Amino acid sequence: MRRTITGFSNPTVKSLRALRDKKHRRREGKFLAEGLRLLTDARESGRLPEMLVMADERDDHPLLSALIDDVEAAGGEIVETAPDILSKITGKDNPQAVIGVFEEFDTALAQIDRSAAPIWLVAQALRDPGNLGTMLRTGDAVGAGGLILIDDCADPFSAEAVRASMGAVFTQRIAQAPWDAFIAWLRTGEQAQLVAASLRDAVPYRGAAYRAPCFILVGNESRGLPEEYEASCDLRVTMPMRGRADSLNAAVAAAVLSYEVLATLES
Amino acid sequence: MRRTITGFSNPTVKSLRALRDKKHRRREGKFLAEGLRLLTDARESGRLPEMLVMADERDDHPLLSALIDDVEAAGGEIVETAPDILSKITGKDNPQAVIGVFEEFDTALAQIDRSAAPIWLVAQALRDPGNLGTMLRTGDAVGAGGLILIDDCADPFSAEAVRASMGAVFTQRIAQAPWDAFIAWLRTGEQAQLVAASLRDAVPYRGAAYRAPCFILVGNESRGLPEEYEASCDLRVTMPMRGRADSLNAAVAAAVLSYEVLATLES
Repeated sequence: MRRTITGFSNPTVKSLRALRDKKHRRREGKFLAEGLRLLTDARESGRLPEMLVMADERDDHPLLSALIDDVEAAGGEIVETAPDILSKITGKDNPQAVIGVFEEFDTALAQIDRSAAPIWLVAQALRDPGNLGTMLRTGDAVGAGGLILIDDCADPFSAEAVRASMGAVFTQRIAQAPWDAFIAWLRTGEQAQLVAASLRDAVPYRGAAYRAPCFILVGNESRGLPEEYEASCDLRVTMPMRGRADSLNAAVAAAVLSYEVLATLES
Repeated sequence: MRRTITGFSNPTVKSLRALRDKKHRRREGKFLAEGLRLLTDARESGRLPEMLVMADERDDHPLLSALIDDVEAAGGEIVETAPDILSKITGKDNPQAVIGVFEEFDTALAQIDRSAAPIWLVAQALRDPGNLGTMLRTGDAVGAGGLILIDDCADPFSAEAVRASMGAVFTQRIAQAPWDAFIAWLRTGEQAQLVAASLRDAVPYRGAAYRAPCFILVGNESRGLPEEYEASCDLRVTMPMRGRADSLNAAVAAAVLSYEVLATLES
């Protein structure tokens, strides 16, 4: 279905703008992804937006045409609007912008099949949506199955997380759970290994005895992991710190550790 | 020297606010670092601000007292102001904020002593100040000597880069140079190895023949490295990509590679 929006006060404009806000996203169960590249990644991963919004005056692009065709074929909506109304929705002055509205995925732990991948990333109280998106991107790169968000993390469906994920938000499984529920789930069924990046009672990350499915846990950007969480892990590993600082950026720590685990599991 | 600022229109207020802008920083040769933790890192690295700005109503803290003493002893200025004026300067509503004004460092290549460290990071046209700060932080962690910024990079003295560096902006050497000048400098004097994270004509990053001083080069976030830059490298290495994407976040790629180089050089 195609339609054209001509007025700033159109309810669709208001509702799209509101999706930049987490509370509204939660209530609607929808999120935005912006840009032809990201939307093409989504499409190639079998995820189509239920609505596609773009300017009526725009350049043609074969990937955009393919996207429009697929969204229409799937019964989605194509919305065209004036460049200035589009700017109001995106908050940016880019008349080539294309926005997709997606249904949020089910983020129940039960959606995770741990045998589907050798590596899973787990973030606890990670507050920076950019870090969260970067972890999704790294997860894709190391062949992880997905990212499990423990306690009060940033929203994986925020614009910043979606952007930083470079499309991995559409390919990585995402689950959200409180710590207790996560541990109960992890310790049931096929044996899994929980590995923490830690400074306490830890062995060198290089050459540690990783085994699949390996769940790599990183903590909050400033506080790290609670001590009792670390105590529940099967393995605590530490990276060399040759300088003044005693920690790495959380997404960096997850990546260095993930690549080490990948190398061990594939050797 | 201590003084109190009571008016919003005070020229110091205006000049501090202007330091959030790159053009103004360049002209003044100064930059801001905010927060007691960051300023304490700077102090412990032997870098003191020439001016310290804080609210007149604030909680006492032994680290703050130590900082004030040291800045005064070094002939720096202590400026106290009302919480609302402080908020205007920082753009944040935090009456406990402490801001330091630092002189920008000399970023000439000639300042770099390559024999001082086994690893150096090099970023080409890196546009995200958060990535740049994260690379500084990683550099500190792996015992790198510093970060060399090639072509048109984000400003290492921007608030976001300084914050993401977690103090490493004060401990890592920072140099800026166009590519030709960098290569001419690199190929003169003690032999150095230039390693690019690359997809073209590359060997696996794991087990590659790294040697010190090793210069690790990563490219722009969306375009990567120009082909002719890669061709000038002594070694092109690639990380496994098991998913859909063909690249990592630039700061993540730098970190994974840095830790591999560190492990090789120390083994």
